[in-house]
Amino acid sequence: MTAEVGVIGTGVMGSNLARNLARNLAGRTGARVAVYDRDVDRASALAAEHPEAEFLVASSPADLASKLSGPRVAILMVNAGAATDSAINDLVQVFEPGDIIVDGGNSLFTDTIARGGTVSQSGIEFVGVGISGGEVGALEGPSMMVGGTESAWSRLRPILEPSAARAEPSDESVEPSAARGVQAERESCIAHVGTDGAGHFVKMIHNGIEYADMQLIAEAFALLRSRLGLTPPEIAEVFREWNRGDLESYLIEITAEVLDHTDAVTGQPFVDVIADSAGAKGTGGWTVKTGLDLGVPVATIAEAVSARSLSAASVLRSSGTALDGPSTAASAIDEARASADDGAPASAIDDRDMVLETVRQALFTGKVLAYVQGFHEIAAGAQEHGWNTDLGEVARIWRAGCIIRARFLDRITEAYEADPDLSSLLADPHFQDSLNAGQQALRDTVADAAAHGVPIPALASALSYFDGVRASRASAALVQGQRDFFGSHTYARTDRSGTFHTLWSGDRSEVQL
Amino acid sequence: MTAEVGVIGTGVMGSNLARNLARNLAGRTGARVAVYDRDVDRASALAAEHPEAEFLVASSPADLASKLSGPRVAILMVNAGAATDSAINDLVQVFEPGDIIVDGGNSLFTDTIARGGTVSQSGIEFVGVGISGGEVGALEGPSMMVGGTESAWSRLRPILEPSAARAEPSDESVEPSAARGVQAERESCIAHVGTDGAGHFVKMIHNGIEYADMQLIAEAFALLRSRLGLTPPEIAEVFREWNRGDLESYLIEITAEVLDHTDAVTGQPFVDVIADSAGAKGTGGWTVKTGLDLGVPVATIAEAVSARSLSAASVLRSSGTALDGPSTAASAIDEARASADDGAPASAIDDRDMVLETVRQALFTGKVLAYVQGFHEIAAGAQEHGWNTDLGEVARIWRAGCIIRARFLDRITEAYEADPDLSSLLADPHFQDSLNAGQQALRDTVADAAAHGVPIPALASALSYFDGVRASRASAALVQGQRDFFGSHTYARTDRSGTFHTLWSGDRSEVQL
Repeated sequence: MTAEVGVIGTGVMGSNLARNLARNLAGRTGARVAVYDRDVDRASALAAEHPEAEFLVASSPADLASKLSGPRVAILMVNAGAATDSAINDLVQVFEPGDIIVDGGNSLFTDTIARGGTVSQSGIEFVGVGISGGEVGALEGPSMMVGGTESAWSRLRPILEPSAARAEPSDESVEPSAARGVQAERESCIAHVGTDGAGHFVKMIHNGIEYADMQLIAEAFALLRSRLGLTPPEIAEVFREWNRGDLESYLIEITAEVLDHTDAVTGQPFVDVIADSAGAKGTGGWTVKTGLDLGVPVATIAEAVSARSLSAASVLRSSGTALDGPSTAASAIDEARASADDGAPASAIDDRDMVLETVRQALFTGKVLAYVQGFHEIAAGAQEHGWNTDLGEVARIWRAGCIIRARFLDRITEAYEADPDLSSLLADPHFQDSLNAGQQALRDTVADAAAHGVPIPALASALSYFDGVRASRASAALVQGQRDFFGSHTYARTDRSGTFHTLWSGDRSEVQL
Repeated sequence: MTAEVGVIGTGVMGSNLARNLARNLAGRTGARVAVYDRDVDRASALAAEHPEAEFLVASSPADLASKLSGPRVAILMVNAGAATDSAINDLVQVFEPGDIIVDGGNSLFTDTIARGGTVSQSGIEFVGVGISGGEVGALEGPSMMVGGTESAWSRLRPILEPSAARAEPSDESVEPSAARGVQAERESCIAHVGTDGAGHFVKMIHNGIEYADMQLIAEAFALLRSRLGLTPPEIAEVFREWNRGDLESYLIEITAEVLDHTDAVTGQPFVDVIADSAGAKGTGGWTVKTGLDLGVPVATIAEAVSARSLSAASVLRSSGTALDGPSTAASAIDEARASADDGAPASAIDDRDMVLETVRQALFTGKVLAYVQGFHEIAAGAQEHGWNTDLGEVARIWRAGCIIRARFLDRITEAYEADPDLSSLLADPHFQDSLNAGQQALRDTVADAAAHGVPIPALASALSYFDGVRASRASAALVQGQRDFFGSHTYARTDRSGTFHTLWSGDRSEVQL
């Protein structure tokens, strides 16, 4: 009795993925799933709890190897870092050339590239797969971003594809497209996005975009609360309404759920009881660092990461009460609301519906710009590393199973289907239309938030990014002048090719270098 | 005939530093400077061109070792990276325990820590020194940030201190302080800022702040031009005026010089002839990455780096003309100005002086917040690496010789002298007063720029940072709620200690973990 695939590591993610694989491979000859864990009892317990999965429990890496039909496929679902290296070493001892080791964890893509180089020396294939969707996704169907060689992908695809998330066929009402017919056939949310570390790279960018998306939503919440005096349940209703339009997405949906939840202990809105301190040392930070390495501006993602760091920086926030500005505290808004004759808060803008629509458009526009940044980074990474990444395909496999799944992703797929060589999403006419339709709302929202003391780092960054792209002359001209003055860094000219330097300490004539 | 110190690498920086050392050590017994370069002819040429320096030219690392009196001190002035490693290896072969190798280049501080660990195995001291001020600083007096051990500092101090920049005694008119008397005695811009990589770390943050400072100035320029229709020479005059107040600094001074310069070829303002594309892969990016590692929000520095990347991203900017928004092009402003009856631009706000003062205050406030971020990162780095860094001393040694030298630095020194345990500059009453006085101007400027399409990423980021610190409840509360919903990431509560999770897929009750 042999198995088609092995799963190593039977924590929650590994167990759920193993069950997902077993369920979807069931019925195929020899299509059993073997499980192995350093804690053998844990693997045995999983098999005992889920007899329907018919797991083969391996007692050692060698036993696992003996239970797998060749070429062998084992998926590591262990912690990134040392545990991953250790598990790889174990497998390399017992696997043979042509076998495949898959890292399904959250590894940094450069680690994946390095591990692939080492593992391949023994003739074994190493494939990094970004698996998105958390525990539920692992069990019910994650979005999977596959790296590694084409030959490994051919072997892996029939194993993994049945377990991947499936997106509903695109909503025809959004926008007719000749490409729809093709899409309907390829709904499975899995793709080979490039060789070696491409899978983990694309997953990293997914998470970076997720950081920005969440922060933008949180800023919209803060604005609605502060500027209209709405309660969290009222804002939940607003988000539910928004979820029926362009903004339709999993994150908007769950935001409504969170805002509508009442804390059982205090009877307060749940969101007011959570400690407002978030960590930020994960994949969001990697996305920013990699953007810096690639020279790609991803400022809105950087602001989202920074906002989390700031929330956790008590050393800064302890000085907050000593700093002046308009009050945005919920208590002050509630008081103002209670004391107003008509029940409306003192800070309310005249037309509530207009404010709601302005913030909605600002949120959508900010979100579009965050995706522009993320896809720019994917394109730059693919170019840097020689991956032939299909950017439309990336958007397509994010349509289900992952955290940033959204109706809006269809637009990205369509943009790259219309022009596979699109230089950036900003060059797509439909994206330009969306941004042009929303830019005024983004302006109004940023200006209003600045005046009223609501921190909106991601929205403000998105607007400056937009206006930075628009600017016919960037402020970098002055920066280059300063750099030439103090450091002889030289500059280029708009009217002639070459490298120039002005003799600032001399007669201020220009020399060509 | 022996030398007190050797300089390795006789490029522009190395040559200038060697001449500076020779000039300042002259007259002390045995206080000659030896120079060595892999290109021996280059070192010989330096000695021939500057007979007054009385350089001893070494023909090899061994010859250099023989020319130095012990314990030997050699300063590497070579490129960061492989050239530095190679030069260190050469010296380790010929130096003896107790001798000191100084890296005066722009090395990444983590490389310095690693090199120190390797070099110290042979009993040789390794000291990273951040040297700021460019070519002119190296010759006339740089600001020097010294790492390494206390014992190495004792040996190095009498060699380096005479060559360091000297700050003018603090301007008593700014603010009286009991600390002034002390400062007057310690004007030399050199300090031991911590062990191992601390010198290069502090230099890195200096450069990160420099990025933000330059970007903020460039944004102020863009605002004055776009909103008041001022010409570059007119704005140069504004900057000269500003340089007489709180903003007094080298960067403001040279900005006026650059803006007042006319291109000889075209007769246009020089700033309009420079290609507006700046690189951003250096120490600014390192500052952001290290901030991410430390969990310190340095968003305004990140925006400055991103603005340079965006300026160079032709793949984005080529779409700029297709994007809508108010025009800020100089040509449009000039036309509007020309067509207006009274010669004032159509976009001019009523009171020119009010706009100037608002932008001035916004620039100063943004600058203060950039320094708050930079000093937060130094404090966090010092804590992480166990450096006993005196933050007031850091500000003091930046008062001359380096690019960000400014009157304003006295305020930072005073803040840390008043309270050496200051948790952050935001906790200093004088900084709070400054920020509170300027926050309204920053708000008005950000709102105005948003409305009128001027990209101001650093100013907007600074305001969101300020309002983020002020917020009694951060948007991170909602983010934590979202994360618990989709990923079971758990959360803390405001009213009870412990770690909690809500069973979102179940009955939505809360469990304590």
